[in-house]
Amino acid sequence: MDFKLSTQPYKGTRDFYPREMRLRNWFFGKIRDALELACFEEYEGPMLESLDLYAAKSGEELAKEQTYNFEDRGGRSLAIRPEMTPTVARMVAAKMGELNYPLKWFSIANMYRYERPQRGRLREFWQLNVDIFGCDTFEADLDVIKSAITVLRAFGADESMFLVHINNRRFFNDAIAAIAGTDTEGARRVSKVVDRKNKVPRETYEADLKALGLTDEQIAKIDALYTMNVTEATALCPDSVGATELRALFDALEKTGLAKYCTFDFGIIRGLDYYTGTVFEVFDNAPENNRAMFGGGRYDNLVGLFQKNASISGVGYGMGDVTLENFLTTHNLIPDFNVGKTKVLITRFADVPLEAYNQIADTLFSSGVRACLYLGNKKFGKQIDFAAKEHYSHVIIMGSDELASGTVKVKNLGTREENVVKIEALDSFFTDGAVPSDITWDDIMNGVKE
Amino acid sequence: MDFKLSTQPYKGTRDFYPREMRLRNWFFGKIRDALELACFEEYEGPMLESLDLYAAKSGEELAKEQTYNFEDRGGRSLAIRPEMTPTVARMVAAKMGELNYPLKWFSIANMYRYERPQRGRLREFWQLNVDIFGCDTFEADLDVIKSAITVLRAFGADESMFLVHINNRRFFNDAIAAIAGTDTEGARRVSKVVDRKNKVPRETYEADLKALGLTDEQIAKIDALYTMNVTEATALCPDSVGATELRALFDALEKTGLAKYCTFDFGIIRGLDYYTGTVFEVFDNAPENNRAMFGGGRYDNLVGLFQKNASISGVGYGMGDVTLENFLTTHNLIPDFNVGKTKVLITRFADVPLEAYNQIADTLFSSGVRACLYLGNKKFGKQIDFAAKEHYSHVIIMGSDELASGTVKVKNLGTREENVVKIEALDSFFTDGAVPSDITWDDIMNGVKE
Repeated sequence: MDFKLSTQPYKGTRDFYPREMRLRNWFFGKIRDALELACFEEYEGPMLESLDLYAAKSGEELAKEQTYNFEDRGGRSLAIRPEMTPTVARMVAAKMGELNYPLKWFSIANMYRYERPQRGRLREFWQLNVDIFGCDTFEADLDVIKSAITVLRAFGADESMFLVHINNRRFFNDAIAAIAGTDTEGARRVSKVVDRKNKVPRETYEADLKALGLTDEQIAKIDALYTMNVTEATALCPDSVGATELRALFDALEKTGLAKYCTFDFGIIRGLDYYTGTVFEVFDNAPENNRAMFGGGRYDNLVGLFQKNASISGVGYGMGDVTLENFLTTHNLIPDFNVGKTKVLITRFADVPLEAYNQIADTLFSSGVRACLYLGNKKFGKQIDFAAKEHYSHVIIMGSDELASGTVKVKNLGTREENVVKIEALDSFFTDGAVPSDITWDDIMNGVKE
Repeated sequence: MDFKLSTQPYKGTRDFYPREMRLRNWFFGKIRDALELACFEEYEGPMLESLDLYAAKSGEELAKEQTYNFEDRGGRSLAIRPEMTPTVARMVAAKMGELNYPLKWFSIANMYRYERPQRGRLREFWQLNVDIFGCDTFEADLDVIKSAITVLRAFGADESMFLVHINNRRFFNDAIAAIAGTDTEGARRVSKVVDRKNKVPRETYEADLKALGLTDEQIAKIDALYTMNVTEATALCPDSVGATELRALFDALEKTGLAKYCTFDFGIIRGLDYYTGTVFEVFDNAPENNRAMFGGGRYDNLVGLFQKNASISGVGYGMGDVTLENFLTTHNLIPDFNVGKTKVLITRFADVPLEAYNQIADTLFSSGVRACLYLGNKKFGKQIDFAAKEHYSHVIIMGSDELASGTVKVKNLGTREENVVKIEALDSFFTDGAVPSDITWDDIMNGVKE
């Protein structure tokens, strides 16, 4: 065949070579560990879903435009999932009567969106989704916000690096009603203008509010809300359910030591109409990067599209892997994965039998030391080059002399230190050393990690 | 909206509720740990690839028939990956000059195949792919076969449960040539008949061989090979390169203690033409289930479709999650994930402030004890029901009396044992107990697990 295929991945997707994969596994591993400690449980669904699932939410045209979709040979319209919520809604609806509420669920899954690739947005991305279903009180909102803070803290982020901006849609509506006498629909229209506030010039913002019938004085009152704390703001309509929810949430954030990570922000709307209570966005504090990284909120009915006369509330958020990586890179929170990890290459000479080397590998393996034989018959110098390039921490050298004396040389490629070690003492040389093994074969067999 | 959406996942795909997801994470975690200990490195590629990638290998018609494929709005033909090899070949070809060989790579990724769902075969499945690229000697074959054995052993499987059947395509060709005087193309035709041997009646098998010109005597000689060990079989054409490879491999299997998991089997072909040397299949020994679970082999040129005048050899295998689950279920190797895991529900009374409960949760969390507050305001009995159904191991009970005395009651839901514990001694109550914590917050922060 003369025609040669391209080696590039499809536009907007990424190849994860071992280096990138280590980073991804590190991301997901930390997130998983932190959320599981707080009793969140992981779920996942299929990559392909019926297109209806997305069309029902955002209209067929938009669903078709934003997803990768096609018909199968049975004429069924399918889409590659662009988000997780419709899938999890379907799953909850399917087992609604069997599940024990509240559910604390999360997933880490890949999604596809048909859009122009740009910084922070790719066509294929991974997304963390965290939700609590079936708990109507502010405590679930607290728990979800806490989980977002916990996830970022697990990566070493502290309060100097990010801030959670919190608002409440019910409170927003009541506050706008108190200021401008609007009904729910009027408040919704105002919310659309507030949502765009930071994306348009001030004049446009004011003109848009005036077009909705607001006066300069009313606009000034809204302006005042943007800088108020939660006590000042909720004083505007103290009996509003939203105000009560906000005060309860902030009171709890204060008492649970989370207040330093959070601020009230009347400008937070979260575009989508389906949010009904608490809404929040997490901002990167880095000046060059000051923007919402991710966010979420509370919605009243998760399963309405699937079940008549049934209602399960939810509160949650989604966080993309690209956004998270940008944040961690900016704040220098990604470690060098090659430092401090024991990984041993057993180099080889032609006059020593394979099984002698193999026995060393097996001994180290059983003790939980990452180790393997050099495969192939390159010269010793090339084997050392290979070890250095592939970030092995140590090489083991055993020629026929060492074999005869039952010893090996262990060379630390970082410090250049060399030790002669009895073969039977080899496992303890590594496991008693400064760098403990990550996991032993017994751990794997007995499932300590699961 | 009156029309209600279906709650069923798309045909041939699965929803992973937390219970199923725990199983999947357990599968993949064990595989990852075992392979990483042997210095294999994980990679992944995109779900979507150019359809060309599959058409180049198996023809456009077959590629279109077996994959989910469609055109994007730029007119580019895409397919959801039905297998990993074309992706990894593309990735290796893209960085051919930068990579350090041999590569020991694996991936665990989901695939889609357009086929009728049946036992062991779904439309969406996960597949482990393990390969060594760029090592031409039998040692890579040994290492790959060893990794397959290691993966199964990591799940507790032993030599009574599975057996690796090994053959060599070069030896096969030479043996058939020695018996029937065929050339390479003739041997290839015979291999197709042998490959189908166990799927057709004996008469069909014989008739097919006779149609290729083989005599009864030659057929009998092939029959004899099916029951021979490697020494007997390779005596037929001792100078064949394939025979030398086979003897070296079996000698090494013997000397490295792996012989008990392996057998020579002249009937193993692995349908695909691209295998060139060692081929193997792993059989389930359970009588009701005696069939090849998965297999693989050696192929000469991975990157030929992408790079002219370049050649990188590979040896590897793929194993599906459904097959693995069937095997583990048959041999009773899947543990009860709810046994022995500490998971604490902090129950609540209305007259104790939220933050008092929250502090207990934080203390346990910091000590690596999986714990959370009951969310909501259901009665105490309902909270206990919830804990039992959701497999919490313990509940913590703190009413206003306990709060006043700085204690809590800890109830073990398995043994029904109840202890009164000082709040400040609560973390050590769990961490010093019989069930150690899986991972602590410090572990998560400091990355011990990565």
